Amino acid sequence: MMAAVEMIEIRRGAFVESVHRGHAVICDASGDIVAAWGDPEKVILPRSSAKMIQALPLVESGAADAAGLTSEQLALACASHNGAAIHTGRVARWLGDLGLAEGDLRCGAQIPDDPEASAELIRSAGAPCQLHNNCSGKHAGFLTLSRHLGAGPEYVAPDHPVQRAIRAAWEEVTQETSPGFAIDGCSAPNFASSLHGMARAMAGFATARAGNGPRQDAQARLVAAMMAHPDLVAGEGRACTDLMRALGGAGAVKTGAEACFVAILPGLGLGVALKIEDGSFRASNAAIAAILVQLGLLDADHPAALRHMTPRILNRRGVDTGQLRPVPGVFGL
Amino acid sequence: MMAAVEMIEIRRGAFVESVHRGHAVICDASGDIVAAWGDPEKVILPRSSAKMIQALPLVESGAADAAGLTSEQLALACASHNGAAIHTGRVARWLGDLGLAEGDLRCGAQIPDDPEASAELIRSAGAPCQLHNNCSGKHAGFLTLSRHLGAGPEYVAPDHPVQRAIRAAWEEVTQETSPGFAIDGCSAPNFASSLHGMARAMAGFATARAGNGPRQDAQARLVAAMMAHPDLVAGEGRACTDLMRALGGAGAVKTGAEACFVAILPGLGLGVALKIEDGSFRASNAAIAAILVQLGLLDADHPAALRHMTPRILNRRGVDTGQLRPVPGVFGL
Repeated sequence: MMAAVEMIEIRRGAFVESVHRGHAVICDASGDIVAAWGDPEKVILPRSSAKMIQALPLVESGAADAAGLTSEQLALACASHNGAAIHTGRVARWLGDLGLAEGDLRCGAQIPDDPEASAELIRSAGAPCQLHNNCSGKHAGFLTLSRHLGAGPEYVAPDHPVQRAIRAAWEEVTQETSPGFAIDGCSAPNFASSLHGMARAMAGFATARAGNGPRQDAQARLVAAMMAHPDLVAGEGRACTDLMRALGGAGAVKTGAEACFVAILPGLGLGVALKIEDGSFRASNAAIAAILVQLGLLDADHPAALRHMTPRILNRRGVDTGQLRPVPGVFGL
Repeated sequence: MMAAVEMIEIRRGAFVESVHRGHAVICDASGDIVAAWGDPEKVILPRSSAKMIQALPLVESGAADAAGLTSEQLALACASHNGAAIHTGRVARWLGDLGLAEGDLRCGAQIPDDPEASAELIRSAGAPCQLHNNCSGKHAGFLTLSRHLGAGPEYVAPDHPVQRAIRAAWEEVTQETSPGFAIDGCSAPNFASSLHGMARAMAGFATARAGNGPRQDAQARLVAAMMAHPDLVAGEGRACTDLMRALGGAGAVKTGAEACFVAILPGLGLGVALKIEDGSFRASNAAIAAILVQLGLLDADHPAALRHMTPRILNRRGVDTGQLRPVPGVFGL
């Protein structure tokens, strides 16, 4: 097993203060590795970086069309959103359209990351609900599929038809038998996969074209939905939103807990998957941005790159005390 | 240079999801290394884990006694506090006693980590001020010393008499010439040191006894103040507070940004210094707790150990999905 590579460093004054190591793979739809850092066969829990895989049965089954889901709703099904009003309002209406309500969700309540939504809860002495959970759109998708299948309400149980369908799709697109699953923060099963498998799956999404059967139809629609609604996939200031806006339709990217990140790059026909071994978002954000820069899809001077790849570290009086940046040379930068 | 050691892992289901590497040293007052992990000569920026060193000139100079500082104020001078009312009220009164005000601080404003203080600011549409800065007690100490020395108001400038006195004390207790400094989050200089030097300095604090001259008098008073007021050094739920309460006078511990941690252990005559290479607090909290358990000062079943060393990871519906824990065997656990 190849060791994790030092990818991202934090400099303060003349000193390297901290460093983040990780693994990453870029591959094409045939599964050939175009570039790799560390161990491409590293087994990870992809967490929310796999949401577009978890959304496949929703679309492929016909459930999405039967429910009249829009591109916005497909983007929310793939989202780890901030719980802002633009997210929670849409998920609430979606549930209402299904004849369901917040209590039918099984994701649990979460304090929203969106500062305004969070402050409003404090001002109104309100409590966060399941709509605020960053996965509420994914769960609305699960409920949509569950109703279409005529299955029961406990849709996050690993043997529920929704999760069985997801596991089948997951193993097909990664082209791997998953060694097992763990339970995610939102209570859904999350299937262990190699980074190579995840990158291969993302390359499959990147090369999917409408008219080539239900799988590719679904993949192409989900990627288009993510790219069309970067604000629904994450939220203001978040790496997914900023980077997809910067890519301007050249790719979809998705973060996952414990510092997973994937990219779907249709123009290049490539998929990317990475994992920072210590689970730090600041490093996974920087690493995916660095890979996009290396691939020529993002300018190193673009505000999204300056914000997530090479942010200056300002202290509490605004003094520039250091910088987070890719370890020189690692990403060809 | 010896490589960082895998110290802390995050398990989810049957999988090791993330891992944190670090360096640590335990040594005695003569500087002999009792135990080490990774590279004991690793140069770090100790950040707030060095606050008891930064408080030495305040006490040694006679400034603390001239201003009538209490044990509570000495604890606050060593604190990275949560900006709760128990902290901000005391620092405000301290400044008032000096004939100074919040605007004389040079630490910058910070949103308090204390949930109630933070919520109250939102409810009252207020803005955080410099009193809320986790370092405001340290800065009140700087101002106290600056007034005693008759020095100017820009007390965080590296060539200010306050900072020159700190550098001299710092190099004396670490028994090293610092290779330089960087600017901390609160704008004060922070002097680079080896972990070995930091552990040696902490062992010096651990073995200091009143009546052995101004240096040891100051060291003993600061350690006693930290141990007497664990709630002032950090805040409710924080590792420093919980672990010092658990130690019940058997030691003082102090965290620092980017995952530094030190321990002063008077009963054993030992000092500890550690740094997680990726800067994650969850790992530095767990690692210092594991070392305290290994040294026989903390029971592995104590609530503070369960909270910081081996916390279960509950998801948003309260489902037990995994655990953070020391890598088996690394700390003799």
